[in-house]
Amino acid sequence: MEARYLLRVLIFFLSVAVVLFFFVVHLPYAPTNTSELLDCATNSPWCTSKNRLQSKQTNILKEPPKPTRHRNHKSDTPHHPLDPLTIQELNKVRSILSSHELFQLSAYALHSVELEEPEKPLVLKWKKGDRLLPRRASVIARVNGRTHVLTVDLGTGQVTVHETGLHYGYPMMTIEDMTTATLAPLANADFNRTIIQRGIDLADLACLPISTGWYGKAEENRRLIKVQCYSMEGTANFYMRPIEGLTVLLDLDTKRVVEISDKGRDIPIPKAANTDYRYSVQEFNQVMNILNPISIEQPKGPSFTIEDQHLVKWANWEFHLKPDARAGVVISRAKVRDPDTGEQRDVMYKGFTSELFVPYMDPTDAWYFKTYMDAGEYGFGLQAMALDPLNDCPRNAYYMDGVFAAADGTPYVRSNMICVFESYGGDIGWRHSESPITGMDIREARPKVTLVIRMAASVANYDYIVDWEFQTDGLIRIKVGLSGILMVKGTPYDNTDQIPNQEDLHGTLLSENVIGVIHDHYVTFYLDMDIDGSDNSFVDVNIKRQLTSPGESPRRSYLKAVRNVAKTEKDAQIKLKLYDPSEFHVINPSKKTRVGNPVGYKVVPGGTAASLLDHEDPPQKRGAFTNNQIWVTPYNQNEQWAGGLFAYQSQGEDTLATWSERDRPIENKDIVLWYTLGFHHIPCQEDFPIMPTVSSSFDLKPVNFFESNPILRIPPNVEKDLPVCKSAASV
Amino acid sequence: MEARYLLRVLIFFLSVAVVLFFFVVHLPYAPTNTSELLDCATNSPWCTSKNRLQSKQTNILKEPPKPTRHRNHKSDTPHHPLDPLTIQELNKVRSILSSHELFQLSAYALHSVELEEPEKPLVLKWKKGDRLLPRRASVIARVNGRTHVLTVDLGTGQVTVHETGLHYGYPMMTIEDMTTATLAPLANADFNRTIIQRGIDLADLACLPISTGWYGKAEENRRLIKVQCYSMEGTANFYMRPIEGLTVLLDLDTKRVVEISDKGRDIPIPKAANTDYRYSVQEFNQVMNILNPISIEQPKGPSFTIEDQHLVKWANWEFHLKPDARAGVVISRAKVRDPDTGEQRDVMYKGFTSELFVPYMDPTDAWYFKTYMDAGEYGFGLQAMALDPLNDCPRNAYYMDGVFAAADGTPYVRSNMICVFESYGGDIGWRHSESPITGMDIREARPKVTLVIRMAASVANYDYIVDWEFQTDGLIRIKVGLSGILMVKGTPYDNTDQIPNQEDLHGTLLSENVIGVIHDHYVTFYLDMDIDGSDNSFVDVNIKRQLTSPGESPRRSYLKAVRNVAKTEKDAQIKLKLYDPSEFHVINPSKKTRVGNPVGYKVVPGGTAASLLDHEDPPQKRGAFTNNQIWVTPYNQNEQWAGGLFAYQSQGEDTLATWSERDRPIENKDIVLWYTLGFHHIPCQEDFPIMPTVSSSFDLKPVNFFESNPILRIPPNVEKDLPVCKSAASV
Repeated sequence: MEARYLLRVLIFFLSVAVVLFFFVVHLPYAPTNTSELLDCATNSPWCTSKNRLQSKQTNILKEPPKPTRHRNHKSDTPHHPLDPLTIQELNKVRSILSSHELFQLSAYALHSVELEEPEKPLVLKWKKGDRLLPRRASVIARVNGRTHVLTVDLGTGQVTVHETGLHYGYPMMTIEDMTTATLAPLANADFNRTIIQRGIDLADLACLPISTGWYGKAEENRRLIKVQCYSMEGTANFYMRPIEGLTVLLDLDTKRVVEISDKGRDIPIPKAANTDYRYSVQEFNQVMNILNPISIEQPKGPSFTIEDQHLVKWANWEFHLKPDARAGVVISRAKVRDPDTGEQRDVMYKGFTSELFVPYMDPTDAWYFKTYMDAGEYGFGLQAMALDPLNDCPRNAYYMDGVFAAADGTPYVRSNMICVFESYGGDIGWRHSESPITGMDIREARPKVTLVIRMAASVANYDYIVDWEFQTDGLIRIKVGLSGILMVKGTPYDNTDQIPNQEDLHGTLLSENVIGVIHDHYVTFYLDMDIDGSDNSFVDVNIKRQLTSPGESPRRSYLKAVRNVAKTEKDAQIKLKLYDPSEFHVINPSKKTRVGNPVGYKVVPGGTAASLLDHEDPPQKRGAFTNNQIWVTPYNQNEQWAGGLFAYQSQGEDTLATWSERDRPIENKDIVLWYTLGFHHIPCQEDFPIMPTVSSSFDLKPVNFFESNPILRIPPNVEKDLPVCKSAASV
Repeated sequence: MEARYLLRVLIFFLSVAVVLFFFVVHLPYAPTNTSELLDCATNSPWCTSKNRLQSKQTNILKEPPKPTRHRNHKSDTPHHPLDPLTIQELNKVRSILSSHELFQLSAYALHSVELEEPEKPLVLKWKKGDRLLPRRASVIARVNGRTHVLTVDLGTGQVTVHETGLHYGYPMMTIEDMTTATLAPLANADFNRTIIQRGIDLADLACLPISTGWYGKAEENRRLIKVQCYSMEGTANFYMRPIEGLTVLLDLDTKRVVEISDKGRDIPIPKAANTDYRYSVQEFNQVMNILNPISIEQPKGPSFTIEDQHLVKWANWEFHLKPDARAGVVISRAKVRDPDTGEQRDVMYKGFTSELFVPYMDPTDAWYFKTYMDAGEYGFGLQAMALDPLNDCPRNAYYMDGVFAAADGTPYVRSNMICVFESYGGDIGWRHSESPITGMDIREARPKVTLVIRMAASVANYDYIVDWEFQTDGLIRIKVGLSGILMVKGTPYDNTDQIPNQEDLHGTLLSENVIGVIHDHYVTFYLDMDIDGSDNSFVDVNIKRQLTSPGESPRRSYLKAVRNVAKTEKDAQIKLKLYDPSEFHVINPSKKTRVGNPVGYKVVPGGTAASLLDHEDPPQKRGAFTNNQIWVTPYNQNEQWAGGLFAYQSQGEDTLATWSERDRPIENKDIVLWYTLGFHHIPCQEDFPIMPTVSSSFDLKPVNFFESNPILRIPPNVEKDLPVCKSAASV
């Protein structure tokens, strides 16, 4: 016994040593030479992709090398007041901060360095050709366990604002926080012992940083994270191989293990077989080559242009587009051309994904805290990886890079983070045929071509595809697609007939020993609508059943549209109701069409889901912005993040729900519309090992904004304009 | 005075004579020589398009001639038990009937001649290569004011079934009914006098046949229709120029005017300016040539085949497709291939648009009755005009013709009624990237290519685009797009500031003197799901909030999936609820996946609307199939039309709602799922003069039907497989 024990300990420590050596070699350090860091995919240490996977499968299929495109952003300069900070500017911020007394202290991390957008009235007044507005950076830093918010004036080189100490939660994690958190448990002997006891080679370990949420005193005054791990032996899809029940609580600031909960020792680790989704590891005889090549072709090239790197012009639309570390994609100053006057008319000052809320529905020890806020905790934009040309976006897509700052302030480039492309899938813009009844020979139809702005954020396992789709008829469709990989739970069961009560499984048995846990997704959009100017009103156009008076009509009932203008915020806290429906308009009460209708846009909900959690449940307090599907607030530059600026471990004291409770006036004011898309997800076997995309969307649609159909005069397709193509092979 | 009066009368009668001559020349007669009638677009008298429009505008733009494609269907033969009747078979039916005693009487009209599908068990047993099942036609005829239902055996040449007299409503109108109804008022001097008094040249008159609905005794025992008219002076879009308040009640059998209601003499006819939507009449300088050519290209051609004219095979799907005079498109025997076993597995025995319900929301004299049932009254398929290649469907579309019978039994061809094409708009089938957190360099994405079956029915003014979209992941999306032209109301107002109470307008002022009246659209689908066989169950998987017990978890609540198997029909009368949501599964209780889940499909609602009319309102009684969004009934070959087989002037005594009230057992039975898509439409100025398409859809989605993601092994796009294109102009 004694000898065996010694041997065990020896093997254990040897293993730890090997693993530590392995990771230390790859540990993310702050870079020293900025000029080498211009493409994340190749240079930046934290984002270097060292493929740690040692697949034991024989790769049969060769994937062609991914096309990559490197733009040199070193000489980028800002042209528009809303342009994001350039590499030169980020370096300047870093240099200004480095001489600031706060950063003389040894340990600091910059959690956010981004443009502080100029005041809205200044931006509205600004025209191309005008002098650029003063450039300022907004910085959120952690220094010695405290959060600081600073404004750096790039013109004067001064820190002009410096606040600290009054915040509830914590800033969004840095990538460095996340990466080091996944490695930190390995410094703990108990943790390593458990891993080995579960039969896992430490070299096969993959760990994920899981935000803790806030559940009471235990989470107070410490920036915490939970880490759970998986075996990546035999598969790139380690998510399907959970080491169930093992949760490490870490202090994010000290990187020290606070507590290890180890409750799933009797739960086997699911097998690797059939979990890998990569094309390169599929057996050749299993590949389904079922479709001939198909492509969207534009022989004269796409119809959009991108001026000064960020100003997108397409058809009758024009808007400013930029990547953002937290929101992902930000659309600003969206304007559409009036076909009658030729004028570019304001539609939306700013629109972006403000927050996500993803509660899992398992209250047990290793699962209850999984109630992610993907933007405020992880950075929705930080998680948006390079898009894969021809597969994530079609052939003629333009790719836009993100330029962000690492924790030490060093700029880096996220290549191909956003794509812009024209889409035509065969849909019809408008049509009419005359039937033989009237004897006219009319067949008029117009193809529908749209412009799509896309990004895809991979927040660990899950992939969110966010599309902003602009239509020539003035409609903007905002679509969220869910794909990627489920967060699954290990179980001793390998067949449902062994399960006493399936309802208590908290999900679906997807494969032997694998449960797909039920969860929701909520994606909340900030939509600062400016319909022909900033002062707008929100109108609930209620569709009401009216009963006729006796003798009035052979009909007993009909529907009436009753317009209710929202006076204050509480009037605009909207829960959608199938049997008490409304249209929801944002109008400009001061501007009317020729026949007298106020110009407006409406938000048109698509399929959605509502959060059903108890309002007093801690995660729902933090995610209280999902208590309604629609909210309207008065414009306030400080109210942009629905879960609060400091969402990490927040207690729900600074959300859209708390702002709206102030019930401020919103009639004929500069107002912001908030819309939440929701999904309930009960996993099914088709989601294993990777999920076919599920999408939902909502629309912003002109309603009496134009005098008439704005695409009446677009021409039909004719044969002679379409391309002449050959299959590439035959060329 | 006397002389002036005489002159007026003279002018009036002269005009009438001219008009009558004009129409008589074009009056639809039954054709005599069948062989000349094979293309509706050129030969059949009723569907000949004699352009009655005499545009006074100068046509500036020349439209290229529409490509037409004529298939000769004279020698078509049936290959599959569900193939529609061929021209030869329709001629045989006509000849068999002509020797039947019933049709020796002088006046008769065939309202429906179509395949009587063989019994389902026989069809299920039938395999390609087997002898074709006996061919029978189902005929609905009106003879001397009575409705007859007959079965004609094409093998024996006998009428085997002949029923009459037990029907509530009337059969769907023939095209001849509709065409002659629009002309009949001209035989009435009062009508013509009114038209002339309103200042309309009789040659500019366009009239529409409007189903009357059923509102009580007045409609009993007479087949009635209402006719309303428009001025087409100066525009092809006469719908925008209503002669408001003038309604002619006609007896459809005698074609005689029963009553004229003329109440809108003080309402001006709206102007023609800016109403014409045809490309050819747009002024050149107004045309918006804003986009470069764009096309879906497939250099190796499309990936689908159509065997024996009706059997569509694409990717992993296979189904039978046919045009239908009433339903439009019928999809039968849809099967998807299991990627593991290679087996073609049953998904749906039959799916089609069963009925539409379109109530307008104006209870006044000229509007209250507008509560259309477009399939059962007008024939949704009969109204599906030829699709316009390159605009209604993209380049590589295949077009399928409809073969129908005219009122005298003569077959005719509706060319290009359905199109089949592959769609790729840039969407993603599935994807996953690894973030730097795990250090793996993974970017895997697969493009989403789908197969679309499309038809577009122009039920007078409105256009309904119905898409059945098949995805390789097993999902079927059923999408309805609304376009075409509004049904508008004349008004003296030309600005909203003149209107005392806009809520009483029953709609929106769209242009001077034009109100777009509020209305709803409901489209009810018949979906005979056969999940791996006919005996299936319907499961309401309810998503329920659970509160945790004190001390059980830091969480207070979570969601649980509670499965309720519907025992009888009333268990499956479903109203969707955002705050009490469910998934709705059709499962095969006898077949389980490897890990024990029952195989199934779920119906996934998209954005929808519910009918809010009073349940006792006459139109809602007839449209009671919209009282729920989902119903499930046991399979019954006689229950296919949600508003009843004889929907015209029905009283609601034979609808899906009445069948479902019988509360028959539906557990582990051959069941039919019914889903209703709904739209509330408050018109807006953008809908004038023609509406940009508005769409809504729902999905049939595999849920534990496959063992795992069925498209895991499809390959990504690579550059070398994509086409090489040139702009046509440069070739």
